[in-house]
Amino acid sequence: MTSTHAKRQNALRAALEEHRLPFLLVTNLTNIAYLTGFRGTAGIALFDAHEAILWVDPRYTLEAREEARGVEVIEERGGLHKAAASWLTAHGARRVGYEQAHLSCADFSRLEKDAGRRVKFLPALGLVETLRAIKDKEEVAAIREAGRITAEVFEKVLEIVRPGVSECDLAAEIEYLMRKRGARGAAFETIVASGPRGALPHARPSRKLLRENDLVIFDLGAILGHYVADMTRTVHLGPPSRRARQVFNAVAEAQAKATRSARSGVRSGEVDAVARRTLAAHGLARFFTHSTGHGVGMDTHEMPRLGRGEKARLQTGHVVTVEPGVYLEGWGGIRIEDTVLVGPDGPEVLTPAPKDRWIIAQ
Amino acid sequence: MTSTHAKRQNALRAALEEHRLPFLLVTNLTNIAYLTGFRGTAGIALFDAHEAILWVDPRYTLEAREEARGVEVIEERGGLHKAAASWLTAHGARRVGYEQAHLSCADFSRLEKDAGRRVKFLPALGLVETLRAIKDKEEVAAIREAGRITAEVFEKVLEIVRPGVSECDLAAEIEYLMRKRGARGAAFETIVASGPRGALPHARPSRKLLRENDLVIFDLGAILGHYVADMTRTVHLGPPSRRARQVFNAVAEAQAKATRSARSGVRSGEVDAVARRTLAAHGLARFFTHSTGHGVGMDTHEMPRLGRGEKARLQTGHVVTVEPGVYLEGWGGIRIEDTVLVGPDGPEVLTPAPKDRWIIAQ
Repeated sequence: MTSTHAKRQNALRAALEEHRLPFLLVTNLTNIAYLTGFRGTAGIALFDAHEAILWVDPRYTLEAREEARGVEVIEERGGLHKAAASWLTAHGARRVGYEQAHLSCADFSRLEKDAGRRVKFLPALGLVETLRAIKDKEEVAAIREAGRITAEVFEKVLEIVRPGVSECDLAAEIEYLMRKRGARGAAFETIVASGPRGALPHARPSRKLLRENDLVIFDLGAILGHYVADMTRTVHLGPPSRRARQVFNAVAEAQAKATRSARSGVRSGEVDAVARRTLAAHGLARFFTHSTGHGVGMDTHEMPRLGRGEKARLQTGHVVTVEPGVYLEGWGGIRIEDTVLVGPDGPEVLTPAPKDRWIIAQ
Repeated sequence: MTSTHAKRQNALRAALEEHRLPFLLVTNLTNIAYLTGFRGTAGIALFDAHEAILWVDPRYTLEAREEARGVEVIEERGGLHKAAASWLTAHGARRVGYEQAHLSCADFSRLEKDAGRRVKFLPALGLVETLRAIKDKEEVAAIREAGRITAEVFEKVLEIVRPGVSECDLAAEIEYLMRKRGARGAAFETIVASGPRGALPHARPSRKLLRENDLVIFDLGAILGHYVADMTRTVHLGPPSRRARQVFNAVAEAQAKATRSARSGVRSGEVDAVARRTLAAHGLARFFTHSTGHGVGMDTHEMPRLGRGEKARLQTGHVVTVEPGVYLEGWGGIRIEDTVLVGPDGPEVLTPAPKDRWIIAQ
């Protein structure tokens, strides 16, 4: 077993012991990938204090045998949940943790039925996710590289941002350039939202053509190997109005201050509060309609959450987004976002595209 | 309300009456999009005999108000499941259907707790999915258009398929060309798997360069508006060996025969059996390690399933893939797949790229 996966599995076993769980059934595929290296789109893993099993269907047998570390791979044609249930029954398992947030009610009810009454399933929320939240050096390096590509691609695309280009075409260029630079693709559907469409925080790129005096929000992130980055920049086509400048500067200030506050030991809700207080000072807090950020790693959204009132403290090795935004119906939106490492010496921005070149000369 | 969404909601209400369910909580986002037109990545809908509600968080309020038909949109900052639970309690709901396959155990247990004891949640499997399986004219037209783009892009990319090109670069070209033709992107991660990597049915494109005498599997599908297509072609770089020809011809024969069998009234398991019997006649059945196909529509995988022993009968308006494949460890794989409409006059292929131009001259 490579030492990375051995380390992760050991950490999981320590957590199982702490929670007094003899078994953990892992149904979240990203968690399986993190623990074993297997990257298929179907599979169930079972960990106990000493061993681990990975059940896969025949589409993935070869891949699992190539990729998966520290687990016995079992090919199963009759349903993965059923196979796990039979194993647990046959081995007299009594207390089995399961990933409550990553198992559907339908799969769970079949699992309970197949395993019989003697097996008791206990919700085990976020055991692997908690491990994943703290990134090791290799993981940080992977995210940094994904962030570098993301930033480079954005700067390259800026060269063709002008009135008359469609949101769709810009999104196509972004994802193409990511792949040409070695990314596996876009970590999420790239957002290019111009003019009033920028007021929709999660707008999909449309056929709309960019126009003079549009604000344009770009939200993009490359996935490189197994790790993602997440970055947003907002630009303006031509000289901005006074209002646009005010809002831009307020968002930029909120983003910079919140980023500086993202230090080990600080409550994650405090980073959110810093962003909100800064916008409030400009009378804009009520237009900031989402949380300040979220963890980034193998998934685009993972632990920790940087939302209102979150009590958990940031730790060295957390990687989070800091992304305040202001959305004004009928006018548009401005959001600025970086992926930020909570480093031993303070926050480090991993998506190094400039923020101040936001005015695109005509 | 546009008549499309009104029709769908009426059909759902008829199904609810049939199942004696006064309410259905819809948590599958594709189902919500199908019923209402809302395309956000978070939302919960509740349907009763006369009305419907869509709860969204503030990120999606504007979009939901623009897109959603036939529902009252409620913006909710304190958690969507909680809001739905409170509503049900306040309105004295007793029997509420829920989508068992599309609700996590964690969300369900919170929902039950928040709603209190008087609300009884009843699993309602596949009510909306069953409606979605039968496509109307507009839906078929959308899939046909996605299929046309998919086929065009494949033919275009064939021009650059040669030894020395990487799998990754071909995947990048495919997805770029889809977008340039108006697709929203790739419906799923494009597969380009060459040489021995073709033996992994779900291989991700790698940095591997194509080589002379490689078999190369391309599995691609555009998403256009809200509908997808799904197509696979396999090519050979240079003159194929006798073995490659035999396997190719067997898979092509199995695919053609299974496609011809995909008619209204036929059990879907029979289409699978036709493919399997044909491969068996060539001694290849044991290398066909997955099902013959699946429904295609707003999702890449939906109802009906074309697997071993499936009893449900195909109906006019079903759109399915037919995709037998043969995978030989260490050698490679051959798969051929079309998206096929079960039409009133028989099967119609919606992914019209040629299959016989599979030998790429050097």
